[in-house]
Amino acid sequence: MQKPKKTDHKLKVESARKLSLKEIAVLVSGQVQGDPDSIICGAAPFENAAQDDIVLAESVKYLKKINETSAGALIIPKSKFESGQIDTPKNLIILDNPRVAFAKVLQFFVQGKNPPFFIGGISPDARVGNNCNYGDNISIAPFVVIGKNVKLGNNVVLHPNVVLGDDVVLGDDVCIYPNVTIYSGTIMGSRIIIHAGTVIGSDGFGFAPDGKKYHKIYHTGIVKIDDDVEIGACNTIDRAVFGQTWIKKGVKTDNLVHLAHNVTVGENSVIVAQVGVSGSTSIGKNAVLAGQAGVGGHLQLGDNVTIGPRAGVTKSVKSGNVVSGVPEMPHKLWLRVHALLPKLPQINKRLLKIEKILDKISKK
Amino acid sequence: MQKPKKTDHKLKVESARKLSLKEIAVLVSGQVQGDPDSIICGAAPFENAAQDDIVLAESVKYLKKINETSAGALIIPKSKFESGQIDTPKNLIILDNPRVAFAKVLQFFVQGKNPPFFIGGISPDARVGNNCNYGDNISIAPFVVIGKNVKLGNNVVLHPNVVLGDDVVLGDDVCIYPNVTIYSGTIMGSRIIIHAGTVIGSDGFGFAPDGKKYHKIYHTGIVKIDDDVEIGACNTIDRAVFGQTWIKKGVKTDNLVHLAHNVTVGENSVIVAQVGVSGSTSIGKNAVLAGQAGVGGHLQLGDNVTIGPRAGVTKSVKSGNVVSGVPEMPHKLWLRVHALLPKLPQINKRLLKIEKILDKISKK
Amino acid sequence: MQKPKKTDHKLKVESARKLSLKEIAVLVSGQVQGDPDSIICGAAPFENAAQDDIVLAESVKYLKKINETSAGALIIPKSKFESGQIDTPKNLIILDNPRVAFAKVLQFFVQGKNPPFFIGGISPDARVGNNCNYGDNISIAPFVVIGKNVKLGNNVVLHPNVVLGDDVVLGDDVCIYPNVTIYSGTIMGSRIIIHAGTVIGSDGFGFAPDGKKYHKIYHTGIVKIDDDVEIGACNTIDRAVFGQTWIKKGVKTDNLVHLAHNVTVGENSVIVAQVGVSGSTSIGKNAVLAGQAGVGGHLQLGDNVTIGPRAGVTKSVKSGNVVSGVPEMPHKLWLRVHALLPKLPQINKRLLKIEKILDKISKK
Repeated sequence: MQKPKKTDHKLKVESARKLSLKEIAVLVSGQVQGDPDSIICGAAPFENAAQDDIVLAESVKYLKKINETSAGALIIPKSKFESGQIDTPKNLIILDNPRVAFAKVLQFFVQGKNPPFFIGGISPDARVGNNCNYGDNISIAPFVVIGKNVKLGNNVVLHPNVVLGDDVVLGDDVCIYPNVTIYSGTIMGSRIIIHAGTVIGSDGFGFAPDGKKYHKIYHTGIVKIDDDVEIGACNTIDRAVFGQTWIKKGVKTDNLVHLAHNVTVGENSVIVAQVGVSGSTSIGKNAVLAGQAGVGGHLQLGDNVTIGPRAGVTKSVKSGNVVSGVPEMPHKLWLRVHALLPKLPQINKRLLKIEKILDKISKK
Repeated sequence: MQKPKKTDHKLKVESARKLSLKEIAVLVSGQVQGDPDSIICGAAPFENAAQDDIVLAESVKYLKKINETSAGALIIPKSKFESGQIDTPKNLIILDNPRVAFAKVLQFFVQGKNPPFFIGGISPDARVGNNCNYGDNISIAPFVVIGKNVKLGNNVVLHPNVVLGDDVVLGDDVCIYPNVTIYSGTIMGSRIIIHAGTVIGSDGFGFAPDGKKYHKIYHTGIVKIDDDVEIGACNTIDRAVFGQTWIKKGVKTDNLVHLAHNVTVGENSVIVAQVGVSGSTSIGKNAVLAGQAGVGGHLQLGDNVTIGPRAGVTKSVKSGNVVSGVPEMPHKLWLRVHALLPKLPQINKRLLKIEKILDKISKK
Repeated sequence: MQKPKKTDHKLKVESARKLSLKEIAVLVSGQVQGDPDSIICGAAPFENAAQDDIVLAESVKYLKKINETSAGALIIPKSKFESGQIDTPKNLIILDNPRVAFAKVLQFFVQGKNPPFFIGGISPDARVGNNCNYGDNISIAPFVVIGKNVKLGNNVVLHPNVVLGDDVVLGDDVCIYPNVTIYSGTIMGSRIIIHAGTVIGSDGFGFAPDGKKYHKIYHTGIVKIDDDVEIGACNTIDRAVFGQTWIKKGVKTDNLVHLAHNVTVGENSVIVAQVGVSGSTSIGKNAVLAGQAGVGGHLQLGDNVTIGPRAGVTKSVKSGNVVSGVPEMPHKLWLRVHALLPKLPQINKRLLKIEKILDKISKK
């Protein structure tokens, strides 16, 4: 096993915070095995943990070598523990969903750290329009530009060079990273993170051709983003023609995602990097769109739909279905199709052989 | 039918402007049926219109339920009206291209509204290099940075945090949204819109390998953008090695489009989101490149070419052709190929069955 | 042949610098044929060169018409010269790798030109955090925001609206174009170029679902970029969960490239526009990922691997392999598969014909 390298850069979260094992058990609603008073100062990857770190050991790969880590404690799945597969003198936190528990512990230690950019107070180098309205504990960085009639909730953080158009509304605990542009009228809920370079509320792509040129169809609607959404870097989310493009509660998008005008993304749906969704398409709850997929316009994707990576979706998909490929098809069928594609040259040869045989037969 | 919800957010364009039906007919060159003096105050979607709104009813879907809308007037296609399919006491505007007419009416009402970001005057917080030259009625927002020898026409609007390199030239009525970067030497015509986050004039991707490392090929050319172009958010348009990357009159691009060095896009061509065009490729007039398509380098795409969504184009395409797929093929062929792809497992089974039969025959 | 148009915009590099042919030979380690004292003032494309320009004539296409250019000198491949294919009274620079030589000559002339944005000194309109540390000859443009504990080497250029988070380290000769965001903790080497709009160090896309909602997995690692890297416009490169996302020496990326958390890209690898690489994937040295390809997570791509355009890579690829397609397969196999895909309708017809014949036979 690789020796722990305590001096490697950032291989663990350094934090001034500490937790005893029993405090961690309370935080994540888990059981303790071992010394409940042992102290944990950080979280780390399995291979590089120190005596005061906690690590995640979820997969069989790690559970097999559980006694090889230097970590002071491990978070492990209850199912594996109860089936008697785990034999160790190590301190353990045992529960159903170790990944969620690890996310919570990590979050605890990270909050003792500095934020990624300076925050605190309203910079004299920000420019704010008339009739704006702020909550408490606002942070507005230098060179932020805010239009008029803008409302910001409590604990909003606007990083450098963020631009908010007129009439934008942000709820509480919204964090917007540098160089983000939010066009006028955008309405956001609370606990939202928008990563750098993203553009929200740009005009949708709508033009009426008269045979000679294109007439711009003005987009008079807005973008609405509900609570607990996180948007990745360099996303583009267009405003609606009328009404709203709507990103519902708990949605997470990766980087370079494109959501066109009047798209709706349902609660807790997840959209991976470089996906594009065309205009007026509606996506249900708990959907997953894997990387680089494309979805056509005016389609309905139901709840709990999964779209495979690089799929090209041209028709509506019913709730619960898993589709992949171009054109999209049931995922299991697609697996068989994709196994056969590299065999097309063989298929062709087999056909030629058969044709020859039949030719001989017919000559007889 | 859904009840009109007059209080819904932004379901119509609110505007201080008004038009009588006969004034609308003049604006869009259409015929009036009904009361020419009735007053229209806004445009709205079919389902949510009020008595003083005008709506678009172009498709059979809407024309069938024409008497169900609360709208004060409808814009409808002449062909459907003349064929006697439409029977209504409603006020109508009748013409060949209702979509273009609706775009014009929408534009009229939108112009009575506030712009998406504050405009007006030259901010003392902008920084402008030596020897720049402005037209009338210029608007330069805070934290805009302009290089030297830059020329701006009349009515140019530069939104916050826009950066223009040295020697950039913009014509009249150009609007550049926040956080756009335009490298030195870029030349633009008039009536151009560039959405937020876009980068124009970055170095093309050219490197000469010597077997050990890559030597940068400096890109000494520029990007030239002609009149009436609209570029979406987060596009990247690279400068030429020599000469120019050239976006011709009336071109429209959606979001996250990549146009490499020395690409030419012909007049009134339309490029949908996430398309990438490789270096030195030339696209003709009135072409349509659908979403997520990719086009190889040094190719010629003729006039009126259509490239299907997610197509991967590896060869030149003659004028008027419609191609789809990877590899690209005539669209009609591609439809048949795509219908057969999910049947590959069946094709394989049929082959196996035939082989068994022939095996039996040969054994006899 | 097209007449040279000396007045065309930017069809050559204009420069105050001059070189004699023998000086060029020294610069690029080539042989001279012709007048070693003739003076060259710029580089140009073959078709548009003037008497004092040098041009590249590498391909047979140009070598055939070598006497038709107006250029004062040509850079040509030694292999073609030695095989006696070239007969010309023109001044020549002869060597093994004319493309690299042309890149070097171009670089020489370009350095006499102005940079794409104003540089020089530290702007009073930049905002810098506490405890920062600069080398010599730094250039920081207006509206740049720098966090605390940042270290900049010699000759660093930060263009307008660049934002650097806390604890960022940049080596010597780093050039960062406008509107780039670099999150805290990012560590860069020397001679690095980052094009406009790019985001480095944003949180990776990691969430732990509990069945009801997603818990954010905090990304506590960094992005590390080694010497001689060039990153295109609007890239997104995410920070690691633990440890680092690592872009090694000499890597070049095109525009709109996405590199997820904990990705490693090996030395001198090249990533073309709109490629996406999923989390924890490792790419070896001298790899080439062609445009719009996608690579799954937790994969190993070896050294000298080539991934075809639009390929969807789902499995690890061994060193030296060339793969294409979706799913990825050996490139040569893929060529055959792609030649057969448009023939699927014919294959289906052939099968139907065979089935009919067999049906007849069986009836006999």
